Amino acid sequence: MTQPAHVQIVEVSPRDGLQAEQRSLATDTKLELIDRLADAGHTVIEATSFVSPTAVPQLADADELLKRLRRRPGVRYPVLVPNQRGLERALAAGADEIAVFVSASESYSQKNLRRGRDEAVGTACAVAKLAVEHGARARGYISMVIADPIDGPTDPDVVIRIGRALLDAGCAELSLGDTIGTGTPADVRRLLDAHRDAGITPDRLAVHFHDSYGQGLANVLTAIEMGVTVVDASIGGIGGSPFAKNASGNLATEDVVWMLDGMGIATGLDIQKLAAIAKWMSQELGRELPGRAARALFA
Amino acid sequence: MTQPAHVQIVEVSPRDGLQAEQRSLATDTKLELIDRLADAGHTVIEATSFVSPTAVPQLADADELLKRLRRRPGVRYPVLVPNQRGLERALAAGADEIAVFVSASESYSQKNLRRGRDEAVGTACAVAKLAVEHGARARGYISMVIADPIDGPTDPDVVIRIGRALLDAGCAELSLGDTIGTGTPADVRRLLDAHRDAGITPDRLAVHFHDSYGQGLANVLTAIEMGVTVVDASIGGIGGSPFAKNASGNLATEDVVWMLDGMGIATGLDIQKLAAIAKWMSQELGRELPGRAARALFA
Repeated sequence: MTQPAHVQIVEVSPRDGLQAEQRSLATDTKLELIDRLADAGHTVIEATSFVSPTAVPQLADADELLKRLRRRPGVRYPVLVPNQRGLERALAAGADEIAVFVSASESYSQKNLRRGRDEAVGTACAVAKLAVEHGARARGYISMVIADPIDGPTDPDVVIRIGRALLDAGCAELSLGDTIGTGTPADVRRLLDAHRDAGITPDRLAVHFHDSYGQGLANVLTAIEMGVTVVDASIGGIGGSPFAKNASGNLATEDVVWMLDGMGIATGLDIQKLAAIAKWMSQELGRELPGRAARALFA
Repeated sequence: MTQPAHVQIVEVSPRDGLQAEQRSLATDTKLELIDRLADAGHTVIEATSFVSPTAVPQLADADELLKRLRRRPGVRYPVLVPNQRGLERALAAGADEIAVFVSASESYSQKNLRRGRDEAVGTACAVAKLAVEHGARARGYISMVIADPIDGPTDPDVVIRIGRALLDAGCAELSLGDTIGTGTPADVRRLLDAHRDAGITPDRLAVHFHDSYGQGLANVLTAIEMGVTVVDASIGGIGGSPFAKNASGNLATEDVVWMLDGMGIATGLDIQKLAAIAKWMSQELGRELPGRAARALFA
């Protein structure tokens, strides 16, 4: 069984997590969250999103947050940008790394991005290209890579076609998202095999699994055994997708790290500090978070 | 990647699950649960336990339940027996399959069985032998196979020594339990490799994982890739261990079946029926159950 020596966790809670929570946090609390995440060893923390404050009021403070962010050496703070206007705002606020977001399914693109899939891919590519021209690193999120609740199973070839366009536009990395969490290790294998066959190697890929059906960690295990070394996760399992039916939660960072620690795969993260952050976030958000390891550690 | 064509799920909710729930169910409700589990396709349903009603009041109706059980052809209904007295009660109530229970750790044996580990293994072997002499099938549970919260990591050689004694006593199968749920795929590999090296092949083994740290399904995936084809699970994730610190829950049957379905591994189980049972049990037990797939299917 091959396994990597190191896995890079991309902590998505301040953006992908908080955008899906009912309760909005104060900017100070978000900054404290980001700071504590860095203190726990995180080196990639998705800080916020420059989407419309009407669509995602939870992240309406993106400009202020990014300007006030206390950057630590060796830590990257990507931000999500939906379009050129978002990119301009992000760059003005000091972003040096951005992420663009598209859907592999037509229905979700219409619902979430209010644009057809191909049009959205075109916009994302243009934004990524512009970002790279401005010296920023770009990451490409592709959602619904395994299935869509309306459109059904996603054709891996569509994911690959979109991924190739994003890579050609200058994205350094693709994050493959099973947004509704229905995928199993068999789906992950099929998808990653198809990418390899198409010449998109695991070093260009990250995986982004949701735990709605409890499959998240088994899918991460499968992906890292196939050579993927970048895994998106959210402390406590904060978030999900407010737009996707059944998206009950992101995969909890501490559950992933518990597994990787046990397997002797380095993440640079401190599980006790992660658990403490999850506990604190549970209080701030006013709900029990779905992640398990943190609750077990404090039982 | 090798994978089996079929996995046998051992449904443990009526015994291992309900014994750890605060709320006791009426005998009628338990019988309905067992009947609905069989209706969903289960062929091995651990029905109850003949332990002391003082220790486990939730299962004080074992004699009545087993006598009233409407047995279906092709379905096995094992029951747990702690000692010779329990075996006699079980046989008198019509049991034709029993399970004995020991701990691989000294602390948990003292705490849960109120006996030293070696003494408990001796009792379990004697009971299994007697059961087999009476024509009953015997299964041997070994708990704390990966670690104990007080004693620390469990030596695989101890698990193997106990397992060999149980097999020699006539147990047809060993169920290896990570009772506190701290194990990761690396631990599972180590444990199963050690068994294989010691000549205990996967066809004699079942795995029994708890999801306290979210590791259950990744561990099942690892075990079936290593040749194990019998997996213990509990509908909705009912139960856990009332005696073990941090044992927040059994692995949910429907989460396991969702994965196996997706991987094309037959279980004979109907996921929709399983989800409906989990929903109903959540109401009967008065708490949200930890299993995820059922909640997602009804979201």
